Amino acid sequence: MKLAISGKGGVGKTTIAAALVKSFAETHQTVYAIDADPDACLAAAIGIPEEVASGLKPVVEMRDLIRTKTGDGAFYTLNPQVNDVLDDYSYQYKNIKFIRMGGIKKGGSECYCRENTFLNAVVSSLLLDSSEVVIMDMGAGIEHLSRGTARGVDLMLVVVEPSRNSINTAHLVKRLAADLGIRKVRIIGNKIRIAREKEYIENHFSPEEILGFIEFNNEIWEKAMEPNSDAAGELLASMREVREKILREAGDR
Amino acid sequence: MKLAISGKGGVGKTTIAAALVKSFAETHQTVYAIDADPDACLAAAIGIPEEVASGLKPVVEMRDLIRTKTGDGAFYTLNPQVNDVLDDYSYQYKNIKFIRMGGIKKGGSECYCRENTFLNAVVSSLLLDSSEVVIMDMGAGIEHLSRGTARGVDLMLVVVEPSRNSINTAHLVKRLAADLGIRKVRIIGNKIRIAREKEYIENHFSPEEILGFIEFNNEIWEKAMEPNSDAAGELLASMREVREKILREAGDR
Repeated sequence: MKLAISGKGGVGKTTIAAALVKSFAETHQTVYAIDADPDACLAAAIGIPEEVASGLKPVVEMRDLIRTKTGDGAFYTLNPQVNDVLDDYSYQYKNIKFIRMGGIKKGGSECYCRENTFLNAVVSSLLLDSSEVVIMDMGAGIEHLSRGTARGVDLMLVVVEPSRNSINTAHLVKRLAADLGIRKVRIIGNKIRIAREKEYIENHFSPEEILGFIEFNNEIWEKAMEPNSDAAGELLASMREVREKILREAGDR
Repeated sequence: MKLAISGKGGVGKTTIAAALVKSFAETHQTVYAIDADPDACLAAAIGIPEEVASGLKPVVEMRDLIRTKTGDGAFYTLNPQVNDVLDDYSYQYKNIKFIRMGGIKKGGSECYCRENTFLNAVVSSLLLDSSEVVIMDMGAGIEHLSRGTARGVDLMLVVVEPSRNSINTAHLVKRLAADLGIRKVRIIGNKIRIAREKEYIENHFSPEEILGFIEFNNEIWEKAMEPNSDAAGELLASMREVREKILREAGDR
């Protein structure tokens, strides 16, 4: 199964992505954790030291390698190779394979289009068996959707908080995901403090769309200043239920 | 003076940008408020109805108009025209001229590179007198910097909250802004609840870099579910001091 996690900036995408990565790592043999945001911090949220993550070769560099090996053909002809080659570009942490899309570029140098296109090719080409999961943490906002980076995922999770703006973004994600042919878009409500906030989110989506709610966790906020705060660990218990729902959704395919 | 506002997703960029727009509107004749994020909501934060904002022609469409008028020349030859033409693409709200970079694209259709490039050309070409200010609300993260969208602004404001990730992003913004030749990068600390959080931010930047601190405002959080919450209004008092500091910085140029 291939999942992508999106939502407005600041809703808790990376924390929830990391918690899901850890949760699937309890039940699955391999979890590919893909950081698709050049400004993201998925590695640290999983527990991988920042130095290690920033020293990792960005996956976009695979492109040249694959071209050298096979000529300048289309990516889909390369399927069988992707899984093998990817090992060189991933950092294995327990049964998690961490991959980052691209490194930091110089100011004014270029966009991240090449990275997005290639990442889409890689994720689409990955052949998974049922013991493997891909979880992609997307950049804030919607440009990854107009770019089609997550085309080919089985499920798009949108994290929302009890705010009008984050819900507007979620509806936009639903519309654009449909353009991409992503059939399932599901909502996770985050930072819930009071019943009214939960109801507010429930009023904006159908019951089948909502995968679960995560309570506002003061610990996470308190620890955000610390170097290795295990925010994802805090959420692990609530994430197991979400994981089971995701697996049921996958069964529906 | 031309300002750009950046920072990690969710730190409060748009709320602070809107409060600054309103604050400068008290003392300046014209404030150009530019929404440079296709997923942003600067209009609503200023008080412009969403229907009006989403019905506004995106500024990128000016490009074709200018080309028709002048041939396919370089933008810098078009300086004198930009100010006039821009009126057709802006929504005048009191003494605020609101402009949006681009509309929502279909999923998988294309990136926002064209919009970013053109917006840079427009902002660079705008001729301002001392009674006019440009305030650009950038997208979350750092891609607008590698794209150079805000090249040519006089001051880059970075909003941080008391979290390690938002401070890492601010340091990255400083580095990339320097690549772009933006000489002044200044920090606004947002969502401060306790003294330790303020100190945490102070420990990561020099005193001259920090323009001010905004306290955590429970009202803003409470009202985030409402359609027209005037979050920017809540911050107006604290923003006046920031505005005066910005004007002093501008005097230093």
